[in-house]
Amino acid sequence: MSKVKATNVYFQKNQVSRDARAEVFGGPAGFRGCTIWLTGLSGAGKTTIGFALEHYLVARGIPAYVLDGDNVRTGLNKNLGFTPEDREENIRRISEVAKLFADGGIVCITSFISPFKKDRNLARELHDESKLPFFEFFVDTPLDVCEERDVKGLYAKARAGKIKGFTGIDSVYEKPDNPELVLSTTHTTVHDCVQRCVTVLEDSQIVPSYTAETVTELFVSPEDYSRVSEEASKLPSVDITKLDMQWLQVLAEGWASPLNGFMTETQYLQSQHFGCLLSGGVKNQSVPIVLPISTEDKERLVAADTDITLKYEGKNIAIMRTPEFFEHRKEERCARQFGTTNGNHPYIKMIYASGDWLAGGRLEVLDKIKWNDGLDDYRLTPNALRHKFNDLNADAVFAFQLRNPIHNGHALLMKDTRRRLLEKGYKNPTLLLHPLGGWTKDDDVPLDVRMKQHDAILEDGVLDPESTIVAIFPSPMMYAGPTEVQWHAKARMSTGANFYIVGRDPAGMGHPDGGKDLYEHTHGAKVLTMAPGLAQLEIVPFRVAAYNKVKGAMDFFDPSKKEDYEFISGTRMRHMARNGITPPDGFMAPRAWDIMVAYYTSLANK
Amino acid sequence: MSKVKATNVYFQKNQVSRDARAEVFGGPAGFRGCTIWLTGLSGAGKTTIGFALEHYLVARGIPAYVLDGDNVRTGLNKNLGFTPEDREENIRRISEVAKLFADGGIVCITSFISPFKKDRNLARELHDESKLPFFEFFVDTPLDVCEERDVKGLYAKARAGKIKGFTGIDSVYEKPDNPELVLSTTHTTVHDCVQRCVTVLEDSQIVPSYTAETVTELFVSPEDYSRVSEEASKLPSVDITKLDMQWLQVLAEGWASPLNGFMTETQYLQSQHFGCLLSGGVKNQSVPIVLPISTEDKERLVAADTDITLKYEGKNIAIMRTPEFFEHRKEERCARQFGTTNGNHPYIKMIYASGDWLAGGRLEVLDKIKWNDGLDDYRLTPNALRHKFNDLNADAVFAFQLRNPIHNGHALLMKDTRRRLLEKGYKNPTLLLHPLGGWTKDDDVPLDVRMKQHDAILEDGVLDPESTIVAIFPSPMMYAGPTEVQWHAKARMSTGANFYIVGRDPAGMGHPDGGKDLYEHTHGAKVLTMAPGLAQLEIVPFRVAAYNKVKGAMDFFDPSKKEDYEFISGTRMRHMARNGITPPDGFMAPRAWDIMVAYYTSLANK
Repeated sequence: MSKVKATNVYFQKNQVSRDARAEVFGGPAGFRGCTIWLTGLSGAGKTTIGFALEHYLVARGIPAYVLDGDNVRTGLNKNLGFTPEDREENIRRISEVAKLFADGGIVCITSFISPFKKDRNLARELHDESKLPFFEFFVDTPLDVCEERDVKGLYAKARAGKIKGFTGIDSVYEKPDNPELVLSTTHTTVHDCVQRCVTVLEDSQIVPSYTAETVTELFVSPEDYSRVSEEASKLPSVDITKLDMQWLQVLAEGWASPLNGFMTETQYLQSQHFGCLLSGGVKNQSVPIVLPISTEDKERLVAADTDITLKYEGKNIAIMRTPEFFEHRKEERCARQFGTTNGNHPYIKMIYASGDWLAGGRLEVLDKIKWNDGLDDYRLTPNALRHKFNDLNADAVFAFQLRNPIHNGHALLMKDTRRRLLEKGYKNPTLLLHPLGGWTKDDDVPLDVRMKQHDAILEDGVLDPESTIVAIFPSPMMYAGPTEVQWHAKARMSTGANFYIVGRDPAGMGHPDGGKDLYEHTHGAKVLTMAPGLAQLEIVPFRVAAYNKVKGAMDFFDPSKKEDYEFISGTRMRHMARNGITPPDGFMAPRAWDIMVAYYTSLANK
Repeated sequence: MSKVKATNVYFQKNQVSRDARAEVFGGPAGFRGCTIWLTGLSGAGKTTIGFALEHYLVARGIPAYVLDGDNVRTGLNKNLGFTPEDREENIRRISEVAKLFADGGIVCITSFISPFKKDRNLARELHDESKLPFFEFFVDTPLDVCEERDVKGLYAKARAGKIKGFTGIDSVYEKPDNPELVLSTTHTTVHDCVQRCVTVLEDSQIVPSYTAETVTELFVSPEDYSRVSEEASKLPSVDITKLDMQWLQVLAEGWASPLNGFMTETQYLQSQHFGCLLSGGVKNQSVPIVLPISTEDKERLVAADTDITLKYEGKNIAIMRTPEFFEHRKEERCARQFGTTNGNHPYIKMIYASGDWLAGGRLEVLDKIKWNDGLDDYRLTPNALRHKFNDLNADAVFAFQLRNPIHNGHALLMKDTRRRLLEKGYKNPTLLLHPLGGWTKDDDVPLDVRMKQHDAILEDGVLDPESTIVAIFPSPMMYAGPTEVQWHAKARMSTGANFYIVGRDPAGMGHPDGGKDLYEHTHGAKVLTMAPGLAQLEIVPFRVAAYNKVKGAMDFFDPSKKEDYEFISGTRMRHMARNGITPPDGFMAPRAWDIMVAYYTSLANK
């Protein structure tokens, strides 16, 4: 078989081979090799940026490789000296090797001073001739800054005359006339430099869209606001529910990036069958984010055949562009999303009561979403959180999702996670304490009570306020177990979090038919650990905490001393709070416990 | 944030960078760069094998790149001539560049005569120093064969004295003393050479296991037979059902490769949540292949704490090694696999009636599986089919899955697919007509009747017997729609098929509650087209065929001439056959129709 096939298909070199690479590495969005030529003074930051970019791309499945003095001067070019001819041959060989990498579908990053325009232009021409993309990135760090850094002590030697012909001192550096990018390192972090490089690669369709970390918010820009607002008032509209408004907030703020609106059918099917969005690289998206509408609305809007306005409580919220309508196959949706079709499941009940059609399409959202419940200041967007972490100089962020009051067992494992991250060499691991703020079922503790309880925990110093950010995650709760825990993790990736703590039976609940748990209690952590499209996130599985009666404190459970421990379940905790029974000393910070008691007492008195 | 992080994590070069690549490109199984140094005479086949290997790896997401005369002599080494010093520098530079590729996590394949041991040893040493894997593959084609091929006419010129110092003629070729692989091209196809190369890479953990196309059968080798058979007779055993025996056949013959036994919990969860196996690269596996056992059996076998024997009808069939037992969560399984938990679905009914536990683990199967129904000769394993296609010199194989009689509409689209493949440049596209042979629901036409009907179609020349292989696919039918169609496609990949035809509502059926289809009729083709882990398979979506009353033949439906067409559904066909109504001329080959009538008449008379 292959003899014939080989002749037909395998052996058409060059473009065919490049296309094959594009298909495999880049998926539908395509991916091509290229050369990024970093140029700048010694100490400008070329190698730092080069390796950070390489690491960033490789971590996202995009082959990339840095050529620099270390791997070229000691190998390929070890037979070259520093005469003008040898310097020129040095750059020529590097250009030729970069070209081979680019032809091989790899992002080749060269990191050499390359002070002369002539040499850089030769490199560009060699690539142009072979129709391979070439980018000249100028790392524009002023001489005085480079000289002050003087990492290798070379400037000192050059000034002392011990090195001759040193670029910037007694040899000229010819600035690029028209580089594809200028990177200033004096006021930009390495991270931001990398993002700028990746954005150029995205724009040139070298790497898939959404390779850059930027979280895409769906809010209209101030300059477009009045035009879009005006347009919204004229389009046919559909009213959305409070639940859908919460999902709209999730989308608008970028928690589900790169999803840029309620799902189309293609996105919905990918989510249902593979737990991921598959266009332009694999992105975890285990739960469908969809907008149900009634058959009546659907028929009216199909007939209108135009963009539509989404309204909430009489107010225009967003425009859905080129909407697509498809059947809301509720039984199948629930089966695949929840692993059950049981209509007594509290979220499934809402799905069954919702519209028979789904409307999907890109959103343009008019205003920041506020709930005016006194808690809006806690509702930080992913981008706002990124800035907070940046301001705190956090070098690791670990996220903790919760929808229940915090007891000292939780606190123990958050503190333990921080300790382990410090041990790993991080200087300032920061906790994102991130209670879920959207819809929850009736018997869960309401958001405002939980927020008070969390504040008390922090004020009492159970958790360190210096290295903790408390914010509200605006998503509704679905109680979808292993499927939903992926969503909880994925959404936190948008904040730049790189560690996610997962426990026993996350997003689980009792089976609606009673008598057992809906999900096997270890599946959530197992599935999350294996889930594709969560590359940047390291999963930290819970250690089981229980009340150690000997120590009189919450402690990690030691199975060899079983008898020392007491497990206090959520049910038992609620029972104690409801009946004014004081829990064992060290179970929960006293002020936080008082808030629980007050809440359950008020419920009992209703 | 990144400034600190960068210092800690990003900038540890070399090994860290290699590990990061291994993680991303190879998944848990790991992937590393290396150099494959192909050496051999001019015309030996180095470049042919090199590019075929490159193409093969790239198509599987593994970065690979060939360095050969075309891209090196015209670029990097264009300033070198053919003096002994320049020849040595040529090989040295190639070695250094290969090393850079290998360091970048790429499989670098060099294709140069490289006649001298000294040069090849230098290349190896350079890699050894950098701890980068190096493989010398000797393409061992005898001089007379190379000279006879003389693709570039170089041997003729050398013999005529027009080229001096030509390797093999007036310059020596020093055969490798101890190459990692010797490839003989005189009796081995390019495909098989590539497979041998890939196997070496697998064994060295350069690429994930299962990168080679070899389908792993689970049958014990003849030399182990009596030992394993003896062992099986002594182990605790469990009886399996006919349905499970069919699944065991599927596993044993390699249809579900790389799955090497009934699923463990990890494999089961991956299949349920992501439709794929994720260890060692993404492999589509949308349906769980599991072995249900009773609680009683589970307790007995857990207590025995040893390997177990699987028995069917009193006979020892296989040993399951290091079995793992986990809960058969039927509601959740059905929900995720079928998109419904409806107990009236015929396959779900069997699941609910099966054991409450699942036993998973690697299988060693004693004997080829026979059903002694006169149809065993049609039950060809994937490997047997590969050999058939090879013997036929098929350069493209397109598979057609069916569980129903063939009418001329099916025939039309199979013929049309062949026509389109010929147009694409394939010389000998071959049809795998592959009726499903395992369990089907009661009202489907039984396998023996279908096989007779298919034979009649071929004998009547409706399909071309010369370019068609008819074989039985041993899998049971699940009626799981978009989830199952992926299984139908994936299993055919094991046969080497590279095209798969998919139609309307594949693997669908009526909703058990009646009144509508269980699956949306376009979802199967849509999901299949997007499904991950089916890289080698091109999906050919059905065009709708209907009876053209004007032409008096089955024809592709033309919506602009709606009134010319008549749709003949399966239900209507059954009604006609049952009542002896002759269908319109050209609907089905007459002898094939007679077989249908005979079957339905016999049913009516029961």
